[in-house]
Amino acid sequence: MSDRTYRIVLDCPDRIGIVTRVGEVITNNGGWIKEAAHYSDEENNWFFSRFEIKAESLSFSAEVLAQKFASLQKEFSMNLQVLDTSRPKKVVLMASKGSHCLSDLLDRWKSGDLECDIPCVISNHEDMRGMVEWYGIPYFCVPIDPSNKSVGFAEVERLVTEHETDCVVLARYMQILPPSLCQTLKHKVINIHHSFLPSFIGAKPYHQAAERGVKLIGATCHYVTEDLDEGPIIDQDVVRVKHSDKVEELVRRGKDVEKVVLARGLRAHLEDRVLVRGNKTVVFN
Amino acid sequence: MSDRTYRIVLDCPDRIGIVTRVGEVITNNGGWIKEAAHYSDEENNWFFSRFEIKAESLSFSAEVLAQKFASLQKEFSMNLQVLDTSRPKKVVLMASKGSHCLSDLLDRWKSGDLECDIPCVISNHEDMRGMVEWYGIPYFCVPIDPSNKSVGFAEVERLVTEHETDCVVLARYMQILPPSLCQTLKHKVINIHHSFLPSFIGAKPYHQAAERGVKLIGATCHYVTEDLDEGPIIDQDVVRVKHSDKVEELVRRGKDVEKVVLARGLRAHLEDRVLVRGNKTVVFN
Amino acid sequence: MSDRTYRIVLDCPDRIGIVTRVGEVITNNGGWIKEAAHYSDEENNWFFSRFEIKAESLSFSAEVLAQKFASLQKEFSMNLQVLDTSRPKKVVLMASKGSHCLSDLLDRWKSGDLECDIPCVISNHEDMRGMVEWYGIPYFCVPIDPSNKSVGFAEVERLVTEHETDCVVLARYMQILPPSLCQTLKHKVINIHHSFLPSFIGAKPYHQAAERGVKLIGATCHYVTEDLDEGPIIDQDVVRVKHSDKVEELVRRGKDVEKVVLARGLRAHLEDRVLVRGNKTVVFN
Amino acid sequence: MSDRTYRIVLDCPDRIGIVTRVGEVITNNGGWIKEAAHYSDEENNWFFSRFEIKAESLSFSAEVLAQKFASLQKEFSMNLQVLDTSRPKKVVLMASKGSHCLSDLLDRWKSGDLECDIPCVISNHEDMRGMVEWYGIPYFCVPIDPSNKSVGFAEVERLVTEHETDCVVLARYMQILPPSLCQTLKHKVINIHHSFLPSFIGAKPYHQAAERGVKLIGATCHYVTEDLDEGPIIDQDVVRVKHSDKVEELVRRGKDVEKVVLARGLRAHLEDRVLVRGNKTVVFN
Repeated sequence: MSDRTYRIVLDCPDRIGIVTRVGEVITNNGGWIKEAAHYSDEENNWFFSRFEIKAESLSFSAEVLAQKFASLQKEFSMNLQVLDTSRPKKVVLMASKGSHCLSDLLDRWKSGDLECDIPCVISNHEDMRGMVEWYGIPYFCVPIDPSNKSVGFAEVERLVTEHETDCVVLARYMQILPPSLCQTLKHKVINIHHSFLPSFIGAKPYHQAAERGVKLIGATCHYVTEDLDEGPIIDQDVVRVKHSDKVEELVRRGKDVEKVVLARGLRAHLEDRVLVRGNKTVVFN
Repeated sequence: MSDRTYRIVLDCPDRIGIVTRVGEVITNNGGWIKEAAHYSDEENNWFFSRFEIKAESLSFSAEVLAQKFASLQKEFSMNLQVLDTSRPKKVVLMASKGSHCLSDLLDRWKSGDLECDIPCVISNHEDMRGMVEWYGIPYFCVPIDPSNKSVGFAEVERLVTEHETDCVVLARYMQILPPSLCQTLKHKVINIHHSFLPSFIGAKPYHQAAERGVKLIGATCHYVTEDLDEGPIIDQDVVRVKHSDKVEELVRRGKDVEKVVLARGLRAHLEDRVLVRGNKTVVFN
Repeated sequence: MSDRTYRIVLDCPDRIGIVTRVGEVITNNGGWIKEAAHYSDEENNWFFSRFEIKAESLSFSAEVLAQKFASLQKEFSMNLQVLDTSRPKKVVLMASKGSHCLSDLLDRWKSGDLECDIPCVISNHEDMRGMVEWYGIPYFCVPIDPSNKSVGFAEVERLVTEHETDCVVLARYMQILPPSLCQTLKHKVINIHHSFLPSFIGAKPYHQAAERGVKLIGATCHYVTEDLDEGPIIDQDVVRVKHSDKVEELVRRGKDVEKVVLARGLRAHLEDRVLVRGNKTVVFN
Repeated sequence: MSDRTYRIVLDCPDRIGIVTRVGEVITNNGGWIKEAAHYSDEENNWFFSRFEIKAESLSFSAEVLAQKFASLQKEFSMNLQVLDTSRPKKVVLMASKGSHCLSDLLDRWKSGDLECDIPCVISNHEDMRGMVEWYGIPYFCVPIDPSNKSVGFAEVERLVTEHETDCVVLARYMQILPPSLCQTLKHKVINIHHSFLPSFIGAKPYHQAAERGVKLIGATCHYVTEDLDEGPIIDQDVVRVKHSDKVEELVRRGKDVEKVVLARGLRAHLEDRVLVRGNKTVVFN
C-alpha cells in the first residue's frame, strides 16, 4: 500500500515513562516515527501503544529492533511485537456457500487494497472453488460431518498449520470452531457475525430482527473465542431497513454491512491497530 | 409547517379494491391527493394506507370526511381516522432531571419545527421548571414516592386527562409507568430508550455497553407498552464510540442520538406516518 | 427475488382523480395492490405514481394491462409503463480497469440479489475478461482510440443495440460517452461518480478532496446526460476520512461507498422505483 | 468533565527524536501520560503531536511545564502550548435569530457536557435575550447597520477583548465578519456552515441543494478565515433527504446536522484535539 514501516505494538501495566523509554530506543537507533498513539486504561491500570517507524530510517531488521527492546520488555512486563510491513501476514479465508464476503475480500486483495497473502481458502462446500481458483488461490474443501466434526476440524487445523497462517478469517463460515481450535488460534480468528451484537445472539439473527421490528440491522466483526458471539469486538456497523422488508430482504441488506465491516475489521487487524485485552479491543484508528 | 391537509390513515384485512374504493370517496368529493402510500403485509394479510388530501380541495371538515367513509369502514372492517393538520395534537412532555431531550423538543416547538401544542410539562423533579416556564408552558412537578407510586401516577393521569392529551412523550422520564396507565394510553405514549434495542434491555444500558466493548451505541424511540422496552419501535439510530470512552463519555455521546431519534420518531407520529399493528410499526416516510 | 408482480409507473400533470381512476382500472380487472406510493410535486404541478400488483391476481399479461390504461393515458396526458417482474431487465455493464464495482455487481447478480439479466460486459481494456467469463458472461473489449473515439463508441452502440439492452451501467467506466449516445440512451445509463456531487465535479475528485481537507468523502449514482456530472441523482452516500489519509487511502475508502451506492441506485432503477423529471428524480423507496 | 490534565499540543518541522525528547521532559518531571497521538505529514515534512498528562503527577503549573520545553522548542522550531483543563476556555457565542445551535450549546454547557465558560452571548438581534439570560449568561445585542458595519463590528471586537475570549463560536450568526477581525481572531473563530462544503458555497445552500436534487444534505464546522467558506474544516456530517422535501423541510432536517456537527467540532477544539496548518486540520480523535 505505502512505504515500508516497522510497527511496534505493546501493552503493559501502566506507569510513568513508557512512551519515553520506548521512544529512546527508537531514537537512539535513528528511528523516524511516522505515526503513533498511546492509551492508558485507567480503570485497569494498563497501557497500550503503537508506533510506526519508517523502515528506511533503521539499518537493521524488525527482529533486531525487537531485540533492542528486550531489557525494557522485562523491566516493564511488556507484551511487545515488532512487525515489518514488507512481510505481509498470511491470512487463510474460510467460507461456506455464501459468496459475498469471500468475493469482496478476494477483489480487495487482488486490487492491492488488503496488505496480506492468502495462502488458501478452506470451505466445507465445493461451491466457490471456481471463483477462488480463478484468483489463483488454492481451494481446500473440508466437509464437516455433523456426526463426527472432529475429523474435519483436525484437517482444518492441519491446513492452517501447514500454511503458517497468521490469521484466519471466517468469511461467513457457517460451522462453529471447536474450543480447542479457538484456544490454539486465540486472537487470530476473525469472524463476521450477522447482527449488531449483543442484539440477536445465536441462530437466525435476521429472523429475530424481523420478528422484533427493528429499524436498523447490523453486523459485528470480532475475534473468535470459545464463547460463541462473545469475543472481543473489532468493528460494527448498521444499515436502515423498512417495514416492508421481509427476512430475505434483511438478509440482502445485511450483506452490504457484513462485507464492509469484515473488510474494515480485517484491515485494522492487518495494520496491527487492534490490541486485545480481556474481552475488549483497543483500536488505534 | 406547510399547507393544511386532511390525513386519512387506515388499516384493515387485505383484499382487492381498498385503494380504489377509498380513492373514489376522495375523488367524488373533489379531494386532491398530495401524497399517499400503501402497504400490504402479506404475511398477516393486512393492509395499511395513508393519504394526504389538500384541505382546500374539500368543502367540509375532517369529521364530515370521516363520515363519508362510514359504510366503507364497515364493509372492509377498517380502522380509519381522518386528521386535520390545522388542529395540532396536544403533546404532554414528561421528564426527570436530564434536560437534553426536553430542551431539544422545546426549541423545536418554539421554532415551529414540531407541529403540535404542548399544554404542559410533567416532571417528578423541580429542576427544569425555570426553563419550561421561560417557554411559556405550565410545569407540573409530580413526585413519585417509591413506597406509594400509585398516588403520583393518579395525579399524572389526572393531568393528562385534564389537558385533553393526544400524546405523551417520555423525554428521559426515569420512572416506569404503571400497566394501567400504559393500557389507557395505548399507542399514545412515546419513549426514548437509551440503547439500540434489543441490545442492553433494562437498567444502565451505557454501563452494559461499556462492559461489552461495543463500537457503536444507539437509541430507540418506541411506543410504551406494559412490557418494558418491548413496545413497537418507531425509529432507531447509532453513534460511533471509541475504546477510550468511559461510561460518562458514552452517556454524553448517547444524548446526541437520543434527542435526534426522539424528535424524529415524534415527528413521524405527529405527521400520522406511524401505524401500529401487533408489536410492529409501519412508518410511511 | 420474490413473487411476480406487475409494476405500473406513471407521471402526468397533476389534477384530481389520478389515483382513483388508475385504481379503478386495476380493481375492475381484479388486481391486488401489494404496494403503492404517490407524490404530487406542487411546485411543478406534476404527479408521480407507482403501483405493484400481484401478477397472479390478473388473468392477462402486462401488455394487456397497459392497453387497458390507453384511454386514461390520453385523457390525463400520462406517461405510463407496465412492467412484469418475470421479465428481468437486460443490463449491460461497462468498466475499465478498476474491478471493485464490476466484481461487486457480478457477485450480487450471481447470488440472486440483482433482479436483472447481464447479456454482456463491455470494457475498453482486456483486464477483467477472465473474471467476467468465469461468471459465464460474454466480454467485449472495445478500445477507445483517443484520436478517433467515434469508431469505438459506434461499436459500443452496436453491442448495446444488439443485446436489446434496457439499461447500461457505467461501473467505473473511465471514458466519457459521446452526446449522441447519451441522447439515444436517455435515462437508461447509470453512472457512479466518485464524489459527493456537486462537490469536486470533474477530474480527480479524490485529489480535490485531499487538497480541500474534507472530513467525509462520497459517491453519487446518477443518470448520464450530455452534461457531465450534472445528470439526475439517484442515490448518494459518504464515508468518514482521517487527516492522515493520503489520496491513495481516499481512493481505497471511496471504493466502499462507490460500490454500495451504485448497487443501491441500480437496484432502485431495476425495481422501477426511480422516476425522472427534468434534472431530478423521485425515488419511491 | 473528568480528571484534571495538562495538554501539550505541538507541531514543528519533522525530524528524528521529537516524541522522545518531549517524552523525556515529561518523564523526567514525573509526568504520567494518559493519552497521546502523533502524526507525521510526510508531504509537507511537518510533525503534529498531542499529549495528555495527569496533572496530579506533576508538582507544578502548566506555565512551569511550558517553560521546561523552552530550549526544546527553540531547537526544534516548535509551536508548543501547554493547557490546563482546570482552566476552561472562555467561549463567546454569537447568534442571529435562529435558535437551534445556540439553544443546543447552552443546554450542553449547563449539563456539563461542554468544558468551557461562556462569558457572554452576542447577537445582532434581541430575539434570544430571554433564553440566554435564563441560563444566567449576559446577552449583548449589537446591531449591524448594513450601511456602516464597522461600528457594529468594532463593538463586537471590544466585547470579545473585554471578556478575554479564547474562542468565538458563530452559532448561525448571519453576518460576515470583517477581514481584520478574522485576522485578529485567527483559528479562534468557529463557524457552522449549512452545507457539506465545498458543495453549495455561498448564500442559500438549501435552495441550491433543492435545485440540484441531492439525496443528502450536510453541515460543515470550520475555522473562519478571510476567505468565506474556505477555512480549515474541523468536522462535517450529512443527513438523508427525500424527493418530497421542499426547501423548508431541508432547512429543518439540516438543523439537526448543524447543531450536532457544531457541538462536535467545538468539543474537539475545546479538548485541544484540533491542530491547524495551512488550510487543513489534524484532528486527534
